[in-house]
Amino acid sequence: MKGIEEGTGLMLKEAGNSVSVITDAYTVLNKELTMALYALLPAGCVLADEEALKRASRDETEDLIFLPEVVVRPETVEHVQAVMRFAYTHRIAVTARGAGTGLSGSALPVHGGIVLTTERLNRILDIDLANHQATVEPGVVVESLQNACAEHGLLYPVDPASKGSCTIGGNVAQSSGGPRAVKYGTTRENVINLQVVLANGEMIWTGANVLKYATGYNLTQLMIGSEGTLGVVTKVVVKLRPLPLHTLVLLVPFFEARQACDAVSTLFMAGLNPSCLEFMERDAIDAAIDYTGSKMKIEEGIKAHLLIELDGQEPATLEQEATLFYEVLEAKGYTIGQILLGQTDAQKAELWHLRRQVAYAVKHTSIFKEEDTVVPRAALPDLLVGVKAIGSRYGFRSICYGHAGDGNLHVNILKGDLDEQAWKERIGVGIRELFQLVVSLGGTISGEHGIGLVQRPYLDIALSQTHIGLLKGIKTAFDPTGILNPGKIF
Amino acid sequence: MKGIEEGTGLMLKEAGNSVSVITDAYTVLNKELTMALYALLPAGCVLADEEALKRASRDETEDLIFLPEVVVRPETVEHVQAVMRFAYTHRIAVTARGAGTGLSGSALPVHGGIVLTTERLNRILDIDLANHQATVEPGVVVESLQNACAEHGLLYPVDPASKGSCTIGGNVAQSSGGPRAVKYGTTRENVINLQVVLANGEMIWTGANVLKYATGYNLTQLMIGSEGTLGVVTKVVVKLRPLPLHTLVLLVPFFEARQACDAVSTLFMAGLNPSCLEFMERDAIDAAIDYTGSKMKIEEGIKAHLLIELDGQEPATLEQEATLFYEVLEAKGYTIGQILLGQTDAQKAELWHLRRQVAYAVKHTSIFKEEDTVVPRAALPDLLVGVKAIGSRYGFRSICYGHAGDGNLHVNILKGDLDEQAWKERIGVGIRELFQLVVSLGGTISGEHGIGLVQRPYLDIALSQTHIGLLKGIKTAFDPTGILNPGKIF
Repeated sequence: MKGIEEGTGLMLKEAGNSVSVITDAYTVLNKELTMALYALLPAGCVLADEEALKRASRDETEDLIFLPEVVVRPETVEHVQAVMRFAYTHRIAVTARGAGTGLSGSALPVHGGIVLTTERLNRILDIDLANHQATVEPGVVVESLQNACAEHGLLYPVDPASKGSCTIGGNVAQSSGGPRAVKYGTTRENVINLQVVLANGEMIWTGANVLKYATGYNLTQLMIGSEGTLGVVTKVVVKLRPLPLHTLVLLVPFFEARQACDAVSTLFMAGLNPSCLEFMERDAIDAAIDYTGSKMKIEEGIKAHLLIELDGQEPATLEQEATLFYEVLEAKGYTIGQILLGQTDAQKAELWHLRRQVAYAVKHTSIFKEEDTVVPRAALPDLLVGVKAIGSRYGFRSICYGHAGDGNLHVNILKGDLDEQAWKERIGVGIRELFQLVVSLGGTISGEHGIGLVQRPYLDIALSQTHIGLLKGIKTAFDPTGILNPGKIF
Repeated sequence: MKGIEEGTGLMLKEAGNSVSVITDAYTVLNKELTMALYALLPAGCVLADEEALKRASRDETEDLIFLPEVVVRPETVEHVQAVMRFAYTHRIAVTARGAGTGLSGSALPVHGGIVLTTERLNRILDIDLANHQATVEPGVVVESLQNACAEHGLLYPVDPASKGSCTIGGNVAQSSGGPRAVKYGTTRENVINLQVVLANGEMIWTGANVLKYATGYNLTQLMIGSEGTLGVVTKVVVKLRPLPLHTLVLLVPFFEARQACDAVSTLFMAGLNPSCLEFMERDAIDAAIDYTGSKMKIEEGIKAHLLIELDGQEPATLEQEATLFYEVLEAKGYTIGQILLGQTDAQKAELWHLRRQVAYAVKHTSIFKEEDTVVPRAALPDLLVGVKAIGSRYGFRSICYGHAGDGNLHVNILKGDLDEQAWKERIGVGIRELFQLVVSLGGTISGEHGIGLVQRPYLDIALSQTHIGLLKGIKTAFDPTGILNPGKIF
């Protein structure tokens, strides 16, 4: 109990971030309060050892670290209610946490207090075959849910790069997407009802287990993407659909990155409906090949790839569709290299493994900032050109990849050889300019990662003060004393 | 200006409804205020003649009538802002109105004041072919948008029965659905951004023109279905998709209504994905045949129909799919009659015309209450049985039809020969019991019509007081003085 006996509510900042922290707004868990919390939950549900606190102190956002004062891991909704009642009574900050794979710092306990992890709320409660729905606890790992559904011939489609570790609760908090969102939607389009524990410990269901809902303001949709600032999700009801039996994957190399971007809207305009349509700059795939030790060879002069997946029930139909893709790309006169076709499971897995490892590979090479830009997809070519222009202006290297079918481009700005001083001085200005470009193209500053902590300084670029005022009003209605994940979004 | 010179803010109740009205909470538009309002907008934008007031005094909900004091028909967003600033300053109730085809009384000015009609905000501003998006004003009739998109090979799929007259703004307010929602979603799933004028006249865009959005609470989704109580929508950005080139329609008669309900989940469990899956009780189709003068003959003993539409790009694929439908129905051993197959445009139009006229036909025969129940679709058989049991208990006849693929059953309770006294005494109790059944089956009290005025007394069945408290908190954040469509939802 070292962390707690020091009793500080201290935020440990090991790395060079510039987030300001209010340390006195919330009650610090002194020994008495800590003992009271222990008494509320069964043994093993409250942790305050250094290792547990450290585990809860970071996510996958850059190099940020904030220590909580205590970690709770409730096993039931009643436990969550008990924790929230306690926190509400004493005004203690509570930050809910899934697997900590987030990229906006949303799970970081910037005001100390309690981290509430959903790791023990990890049961698949029901797979309702007759209604194509599943009810799960928030700590269920997304891929586990997918596997369990697949056994019944059903698909839960949302598949972030981290699907093997990220949780459904985290996906709800951040409105997570992934490659298949282009055909099947993000978490938002696949969740129909939520059980939520509110700031004061009361519990509600946000909706009903139905496909359409017109019974007052839609709290289900309001909770999705609210980053744990309005309540703690304790059950999630998702929509399922028939599992596509076959997929086919194409890796299309382009000699001009701008053409790869341009091809995205061209393919949709031709009426095609891929289940995934991903963009990777040359540097991104090179980094992934390097990082994974893949034997794949990329032709010289190739500047970008589109990774396209088609899915359906009949292989013959997919092959016809693939032919259409070739024809559309050819008719447009893009200069493309040899298209790689993944048909066997091993071939497809290799292509996807590269794509999924890009994020890790790129971040492995340098200190970075990742921006989750999203624009109308026909604006992708202008976005890419703009990113590079801003980069040259400020001396940043950038590597871009993402869910191009949704217009969602992850821009990774790399520190590389830039000295510390220049990086610090220029990064904020550069990001601001990038986001201004994104908004001027009709887009916004986050498509699927959320605002959390690290995008918060830029919210004014996307939203007016009037708009932000409305968000704050909603926050107050749900969490009048501001104990739920304070310091995030606005 | 007769209505106004009488200067009353009076609510005219011609028919026997039991809604209580507060007449003193809002400022009545005296002569001076009315002249000030005239001065704000161009000639012809403010109406106070008896005919205009009467036109704005009702929608398609039962026989309810509430007179406004004045009608405004702005032509620009600036006009809307001027009206809202005026109303905000003087605390005058404002009820926005589309085509008045709503079925929950949501557009009725129950507190008098201003009705703001969007009839002159009716321009399709942009059909963005490269991004598959359209930007329209709220007064655009849904079918006009569909036709304009179809010229470019694009589909805006939401198709309420009233699509020939209802507006996109009304659809946003009520989260409207329709037959195709089962495959393409309701208005909710097809709107990506909204321009909204707030209670105090300020204007915001709720989101961006993007397919995924994780930039703070999702105000776009919050506005959809908020029934004009949070703001006045002045522009709507919708998603479009490739227009399916072919459709095929099946009318499947069942000798047992319960089996028709049961078949709904059976078909989905077999992996089928119809673009529409509608249920009609025998009485519903009989009424429609009668009402439209159709020559269609229904076999004796048939108790219900499913109307199934398939859509796609290839006629051959649709025929294969239709065969699958037959096979699944046959394998399950349902006792069905001769399936009618609509292949030509004329045949399909006749089948759909009958379906779309059912609502009008049923309501033509008797005083009625229509309930917009929605349940998980496998619960439809239990819902239908329950509806009939409640009906026998209270002496009501009911006719049911609706969007069965979504679990959305419109229950029309008919007064028929019941005497006035018995109708008045029993109807509220009967509806309450019906809604309790719906909620016990995992459903809710409105799927696509909204709560508005007439479902308001039953909201407590679906939502806890804690939940309703949150809705009221949101309302206060957006509309602190309660001038936007007062008296609705809660």
